[in-house]
Amino acid sequence: MLTIHIDTHSSLPMYEQIYNYIKNEIRNGSLPYRYKLPSTRNLASNLQVSRNTIDMSYAQLVSEGYIEAVPKSGYYVAMVSDLTHISPKPASDPKLLIKSRIPYRYDFSPFAIDISNFPYNIWRKLSKNCMNEYNNDLFLLGNNQGDESLRAAIGGYLHESRGVNCSKEQIVIGAGADYLLQLLAQLFQYVKTINGIAMENPTYKQAYKIFTGLRYLVVPMELDPYGIRMQPLYESNANVVYVTPSHQYPLGIVMPIKRRMELLQWADKAANRYIIEDDHDSEFRYKGKPIPSLQGIDSSGKVIYLGTFSRAVAPAIRVGYMVLPKKLLELYKQYLYYYSSTVSRIDQNIITHFITDGYFERHLNRMRKLYKGKHDLLVQCLKIFKDKVTIEGENGGLHLVLHFLSNASEKEMIDSAGNAGIKLYGLSEHYIIKPEPPATPSVLLGYANVPYENIRAGITALYEVLKDYI
Amino acid sequence: MLTIHIDTHSSLPMYEQIYNYIKNEIRNGSLPYRYKLPSTRNLASNLQVSRNTIDMSYAQLVSEGYIEAVPKSGYYVAMVSDLTHISPKPASDPKLLIKSRIPYRYDFSPFAIDISNFPYNIWRKLSKNCMNEYNNDLFLLGNNQGDESLRAAIGGYLHESRGVNCSKEQIVIGAGADYLLQLLAQLFQYVKTINGIAMENPTYKQAYKIFTGLRYLVVPMELDPYGIRMQPLYESNANVVYVTPSHQYPLGIVMPIKRRMELLQWADKAANRYIIEDDHDSEFRYKGKPIPSLQGIDSSGKVIYLGTFSRAVAPAIRVGYMVLPKKLLELYKQYLYYYSSTVSRIDQNIITHFITDGYFERHLNRMRKLYKGKHDLLVQCLKIFKDKVTIEGENGGLHLVLHFLSNASEKEMIDSAGNAGIKLYGLSEHYIIKPEPPATPSVLLGYANVPYENIRAGITALYEVLKDYI
Repeated sequence: MLTIHIDTHSSLPMYEQIYNYIKNEIRNGSLPYRYKLPSTRNLASNLQVSRNTIDMSYAQLVSEGYIEAVPKSGYYVAMVSDLTHISPKPASDPKLLIKSRIPYRYDFSPFAIDISNFPYNIWRKLSKNCMNEYNNDLFLLGNNQGDESLRAAIGGYLHESRGVNCSKEQIVIGAGADYLLQLLAQLFQYVKTINGIAMENPTYKQAYKIFTGLRYLVVPMELDPYGIRMQPLYESNANVVYVTPSHQYPLGIVMPIKRRMELLQWADKAANRYIIEDDHDSEFRYKGKPIPSLQGIDSSGKVIYLGTFSRAVAPAIRVGYMVLPKKLLELYKQYLYYYSSTVSRIDQNIITHFITDGYFERHLNRMRKLYKGKHDLLVQCLKIFKDKVTIEGENGGLHLVLHFLSNASEKEMIDSAGNAGIKLYGLSEHYIIKPEPPATPSVLLGYANVPYENIRAGITALYEVLKDYI
Repeated sequence: MLTIHIDTHSSLPMYEQIYNYIKNEIRNGSLPYRYKLPSTRNLASNLQVSRNTIDMSYAQLVSEGYIEAVPKSGYYVAMVSDLTHISPKPASDPKLLIKSRIPYRYDFSPFAIDISNFPYNIWRKLSKNCMNEYNNDLFLLGNNQGDESLRAAIGGYLHESRGVNCSKEQIVIGAGADYLLQLLAQLFQYVKTINGIAMENPTYKQAYKIFTGLRYLVVPMELDPYGIRMQPLYESNANVVYVTPSHQYPLGIVMPIKRRMELLQWADKAANRYIIEDDHDSEFRYKGKPIPSLQGIDSSGKVIYLGTFSRAVAPAIRVGYMVLPKKLLELYKQYLYYYSSTVSRIDQNIITHFITDGYFERHLNRMRKLYKGKHDLLVQCLKIFKDKVTIEGENGGLHLVLHFLSNASEKEMIDSAGNAGIKLYGLSEHYIIKPEPPATPSVLLGYANVPYENIRAGITALYEVLKDYI
């Protein structure tokens, strides 16, 4: 007879204690293959528990293959050498998931968002609702382009807020903008012929790495105050151009409507010319009405529109979207449709409801107001630098650019600030090729995740460090 | 004064009804820019609600930018033309998310899993715990390779159940096996030089499409009863080979240890030779002990091990893992580390706990028993075909292969079954090049998602349809 110590004060139910005990005895060989277990009635009376408890323990052991029920005979230990065994480990400390932060007093990261205002309770509610629907089908593979209802919701949002004109069939959902750029670069293999991809210089270097990593020739393009210059684009052999018209990354130039039209005209002049419009932080504009997207004024199917929820919601959500013009959509369906969707259907379901139930609108308006407050205060505080700096790219996005009137090196200034506990991000690393004449030292000043009440002190401290250089 | 009808029977709180009313009046222009709103005290007394209620409504409107508070003066309608407005749409019917199924009576899909046994309640509990931790950091971007604790958990599982030897640094988490194959194909660009990728014929066609899509030369390889033949591999110029040794896809051959050693010897003979071991359904083996992975007996860093939770948990989870040998890991870190992780950190957290809290072990053992029951019954039922069929690839995975002794065409037999409401999946479409002499008509018979009680009736019905062909 088995001697099982039952801890009546344990948080584990009795049946589970009995199950655990017998499982371990089988695993360590104390109860060998073909050993006959006591009958449920005998064990129950012996342990002074209900027979129902023993029934549950045995049923669990049977269902996992540790014991077998032989009709009219009883329960026997099964052959368990081929069962999966994973050593119990303490659940990993969630604290370990958090990367240790370098202890900067002020971090002006242009990549950060204000995570303290993430709509946590709503996300939790939607996530709970989604799981409560007991919708097992959510765990089956969905549409390769992304679930139809999510594509419809994104299409509606893009039309109303960015003037994008597309059907839900043109939208491809993917695990982040980087993944979608990768997919797009693969799609270009089927366009006859991509001679090169023109990119603004400076630009979003991730996109540059993805294109060059997939062996495309990237042609850096000079900017003027209106964005990418047209003459060098015409002179280049490139037939694809990657631009960020609503808020040039990183300089923050808002491309005026005239240059937008010129860009579309360029694309119209040859069949295989395309424009990638990365609308990365267009949600946040603090002055004047946002200019509609290039995609919205394109009538020839030349613009690939790219967006993500990284800025508007949170980077870890890992959901981006791409709107393909019809011709590229056909190529996608013909050559790349076999790629399964990279976004879990639970996440797709949550985001669908986040948009269609009205939360996204409220979140965006609230965040815009919060970011505008930080932006306005930052611009005001920067007056301490007087005429020793020029500001570029303000009034939109989540960062601005500060150019210093100085002959000092950018690196030296950033290092000095770092030593004083202030993390700065240099502009120079965003260049594909260094500009001629060399740019003055410049930094990207992100304000999204700097607490409002720290902005004045941070900029004052920054001035104290940098005043000797300018 | 505003006249707001408050519905005391509504499920919406009063402050939200007032907020909605004023928001809509501002949007439709009834309350114009700079219009002065009544004081909170006046509006409260007018509507006969508490002043606190009005305070909450106004605060909400201020936080979203619809109105502005002017100190010592009052509340004024703000400039709202640049606020985001998304038309309220009825929340999409979750039913629409479910793709309409073709009404087959019996569907022997080899890609399905038994979704009715998905550990729904546990998933919901873990998901709730994860959200309850109020861990905002989960919404920040994590490690590009995947969270460390998840990589540690997967490493532990692979070591114990598959004999894989690796550190967590060698593991890359990605959104599904397809994505990881894509990443791997990109990584191969930096290996000097990939002359070609040898693949078993027949094989997993998704992998074939990914390799050829990324412009690799794929060399199809004949199989013998032990798996991929060595002589043609030596004769080919290929220096990478993609294999499924634990349960060849789709034929189900279990590669014996001798052939495994031969394969490793082949890889050892040149510096740039690599083996991709796709261990896609190794979790399920119903007879004998599973043979340890190739990766586990490789001492020269030649094996890239690939796995996923699609079979073991559910396809929609979209999480796979890849174990890189040290040399490829270096190339990955050097050239591809800039790709952000494609898996949401919430999902990573849930899976980490699913493994480390013991649920994965229990789930696997339970599913193995369930699948074995279906497998055994299927094999027994197939006796109705007597010597007109041969069975291949049984005793593991989630499907077996049925070869018919017949001169009829595979397509014809599948179509006839389809007309009788039985969905079959032909073997021929898994070939890269058609075999010579032509194979007899063959189908993959998946049993994972066929209810146990339908298996006998399904096979009997199948026999009735096909008996005239064989």
